[in-house]
Amino acid sequence: MKEVYNFGAGPAMLPRPVMKQVQEGFLDFAGLGVSIVEVSHRSKQFEALLSETDELFRRVAKLPENYEILYFHGGAQMLFSAVPLNLMGRKPKRMAQYVETGNFSQIAATEAAKFGRIELAASSAANGFAEIPKIIPVDPEASFLHITSNNTLFGTQYKEFPKTGEVPLVVDMTSEILSRPIDYSKTGLVYAGAQKNLGPSGIAMVFVRKDLIGHAPKDCPKLLDFAVYRDNHSMANTANTFAIWMINLVLKWLEGEGGVEAISKINSQKAAVLYDCLDQSQFYRPVAHKEHRSLMNVCFNLAQEDLLADFVAQAQKQGLYALKGHRLVGGARASIYNAMPLAGVQALADFMKEFERTKG
Amino acid sequence: MKEVYNFGAGPAMLPRPVMKQVQEGFLDFAGLGVSIVEVSHRSKQFEALLSETDELFRRVAKLPENYEILYFHGGAQMLFSAVPLNLMGRKPKRMAQYVETGNFSQIAATEAAKFGRIELAASSAANGFAEIPKIIPVDPEASFLHITSNNTLFGTQYKEFPKTGEVPLVVDMTSEILSRPIDYSKTGLVYAGAQKNLGPSGIAMVFVRKDLIGHAPKDCPKLLDFAVYRDNHSMANTANTFAIWMINLVLKWLEGEGGVEAISKINSQKAAVLYDCLDQSQFYRPVAHKEHRSLMNVCFNLAQEDLLADFVAQAQKQGLYALKGHRLVGGARASIYNAMPLAGVQALADFMKEFERTKG
Repeated sequence: MKEVYNFGAGPAMLPRPVMKQVQEGFLDFAGLGVSIVEVSHRSKQFEALLSETDELFRRVAKLPENYEILYFHGGAQMLFSAVPLNLMGRKPKRMAQYVETGNFSQIAATEAAKFGRIELAASSAANGFAEIPKIIPVDPEASFLHITSNNTLFGTQYKEFPKTGEVPLVVDMTSEILSRPIDYSKTGLVYAGAQKNLGPSGIAMVFVRKDLIGHAPKDCPKLLDFAVYRDNHSMANTANTFAIWMINLVLKWLEGEGGVEAISKINSQKAAVLYDCLDQSQFYRPVAHKEHRSLMNVCFNLAQEDLLADFVAQAQKQGLYALKGHRLVGGARASIYNAMPLAGVQALADFMKEFERTKG
Repeated sequence: MKEVYNFGAGPAMLPRPVMKQVQEGFLDFAGLGVSIVEVSHRSKQFEALLSETDELFRRVAKLPENYEILYFHGGAQMLFSAVPLNLMGRKPKRMAQYVETGNFSQIAATEAAKFGRIELAASSAANGFAEIPKIIPVDPEASFLHITSNNTLFGTQYKEFPKTGEVPLVVDMTSEILSRPIDYSKTGLVYAGAQKNLGPSGIAMVFVRKDLIGHAPKDCPKLLDFAVYRDNHSMANTANTFAIWMINLVLKWLEGEGGVEAISKINSQKAAVLYDCLDQSQFYRPVAHKEHRSLMNVCFNLAQEDLLADFVAQAQKQGLYALKGHRLVGGARASIYNAMPLAGVQALADFMKEFERTKG
């Protein structure tokens, strides 16, 4: 098979060694002679895998002991409902503040408004979401403040998280989880769909401070209640066993690569290669303001917009896959999550220069 | 690798040819050079797979045109919440009737009570769930009547579904979906977690009559609202792409085997081999009453209960895996879903006779 570098925003490229392990190990989990997709989630072998995955998360993320790890059904958008359902009732105002930095933060806020009052803490809508806005002082009576730390559509990223004092900071880190060191003790809850940096789609991870669990209303759907996940080690019903297995392998790979610190440096290098390429060109136009550029999603336009389809098609012929921007914003986008090797980014930069030379 | 027959109740054995296809095709989906777990759910290749899977379901299940097919996050227990959330408000009484035939029907009813009033239409609790109870006449003011058509813990199965007139019949078919011909036009909604007859865990299928969609309350969590799934072809957020791919392959396999009619006959043969073995023995004691025996889960006890652990261990040594009954009820259980070949059942019957000969 020809070498392909997958720049898709998610489901996204996963580490090559993990992909091979999955293929080789698919038919026989833990020496049982049955596959991970065929083994009971109540088997001691699967329970051992789950506990090991907990330990890997805690070690790799440097997650403090007073945070619970939940394996959540349905992806980050299930958390768009579950977060307000579980946290809104903590304060009598039943109000939460949301920062608007793009499409997903808007969807999250719209969903949250079903369960309480939502205040807009800040927005960068006026300038096309090309930057991260300054946040007004947090209302101490807010149940939580919600941010989307990396915005895949517009290629922006918080370099520092806002300080929220006693108000729990809730962070959707779907498109950057475990890509850089984070002091989780400064957050109340972090969640992330798995399908970018962790594994396959259909599952989300939640890191939540233990005291924030247990505040869901009585009529909260069972599988949206954090306490149900905590009390059942995320197995109140049949867990997504295949996804958890893959996440386990991805975490082992990440640890073997030197962990989050090491991958963070490589991620910075990778992004620098592409942003340098964009900055040195009049042919390409980066979308995000310099100080808020994402290390995960490099979004850009072509000065000659009518060349975009050709750009994407030519790239794909050279094994540079899925460079088309999100359907809502257009343009081009290179998603360069943890699994993308530096060589892939260099191949893309070479292609971009060559494309500019021939078409520019 | 030694030949293993997996009698686990779920996640369960999947068809051998499908397992090989998944392994062989894991690294390259649709000739793109990237895996199914790495490809965008918005790619035309994945959308084609999803549409093809719809067509396969409609053909294999003989599902009428006025039924929608939904690919639901989280498994059947997410439907324990979603069904009452979506259907309860159809009638002013906000009442639904549930039939109690075991553990899962109880969990379903308990969950539903969060969203309306639940009436017990019938129960077989008094005789240990060893049979399917007679159902009292359905209240025409009920929003729906809910049954669990196959009960994995106790090995019982409805041979015919109750007649509910204008009241929609809702059927949890998790442990028997596509195992026998069903006239879906007599049902309002059928749902099933995938991890027994369809594919990996973490996803559930819903077949729902179109007029039953659109009745969720305004504060229904987005990914529990049937209308959201319908309006977005089950892709309001990132679908569980791996599971849908596997389900697609399982459906093709089933169609190749002759479809539901053909597999239904084999399922009857398989069950007969084991029930004959039980009926001819004083050493083994079947759990379910004869007229309500499940063709999917054959539950039995050993007359000498202290031999159970040895029975399970000896079987496993011979490649007959996961014969231990559910942790809540004990005993032994052989789950023989669509993917279990007749040869596996015969091997188990041979083992049982030999075990009885040496220990009985």
